[in-house]
Amino acid sequence: MDNCIFCRIVAGTIPAKIVHQDDQVLAFEDINAQAPVHILVIPKRHVAAVQDCADGDQALLGKLLLTCAEVARARKLNGSGYRIVTNTGADSGQTVFHLHLHVLGGRPMGWPPG
Amino acid sequence: MDNCIFCRIVAGTIPAKIVHQDDQVLAFEDINAQAPVHILVIPKRHVAAVQDCADGDQALLGKLLLTCAEVARARKLNGSGYRIVTNTGADSGQTVFHLHLHVLGGRPMGWPPG
Repeated sequence: MDNCIFCRIVAGTIPAKIVHQDDQVLAFEDINAQAPVHILVIPKRHVAAVQDCADGDQALLGKLLLTCAEVARARKLNGSGYRIVTNTGADSGQTVFHLHLHVLGGRPMGWPPG
Repeated sequence: MDNCIFCRIVAGTIPAKIVHQDDQVLAFEDINAQAPVHILVIPKRHVAAVQDCADGDQALLGKLLLTCAEVARARKLNGSGYRIVTNTGADSGQTVFHLHLHVLGGRPMGWPPG
């Protein structure tokens, strides 16, 4: 996926402040942070969004949520709390069509969530 | 968990507009809807939040995200898009301490997400 900015981050051809990775997932700072902590967690394999995932992606999706919890724990957000968000499609405001989960914390989050 | 409102919904002792369920997960309408479509997806087993999940919960967490996609598909949100949100702890505004994922769609969602 040469045209996908997140695939390029995975490939290392675009820089990012990486905070965690393993063979399946990558976590890095959002360059347009909306909170004191704003980290994106993505699968290394390209998939556009949750709505494009199949039953075979169940383990990967679970891994993404566990990774969100792990990076939040590393930022010591467990006491104060945090929000996890993923967008899919136009109404959600999704701008990069490579699945990503936002982890936001370090400030009180309002409701509704956008 | 006699004091947990979502456990009571699972048990059927508190009514809810259930839209989907299987042996592991339950999906129902949020009574304080923040969008034309606002559905909650929960595990039937009680766990407080993502930050309380362990590695052994990976499959369940993946199932929750796949279920979000499924209920959104049933509401014909795939074309317009939707947002998935889960809150954990005080800063996020979590009010019911039984893990739940919000599926919001049917209107444009703003940014930041709260």
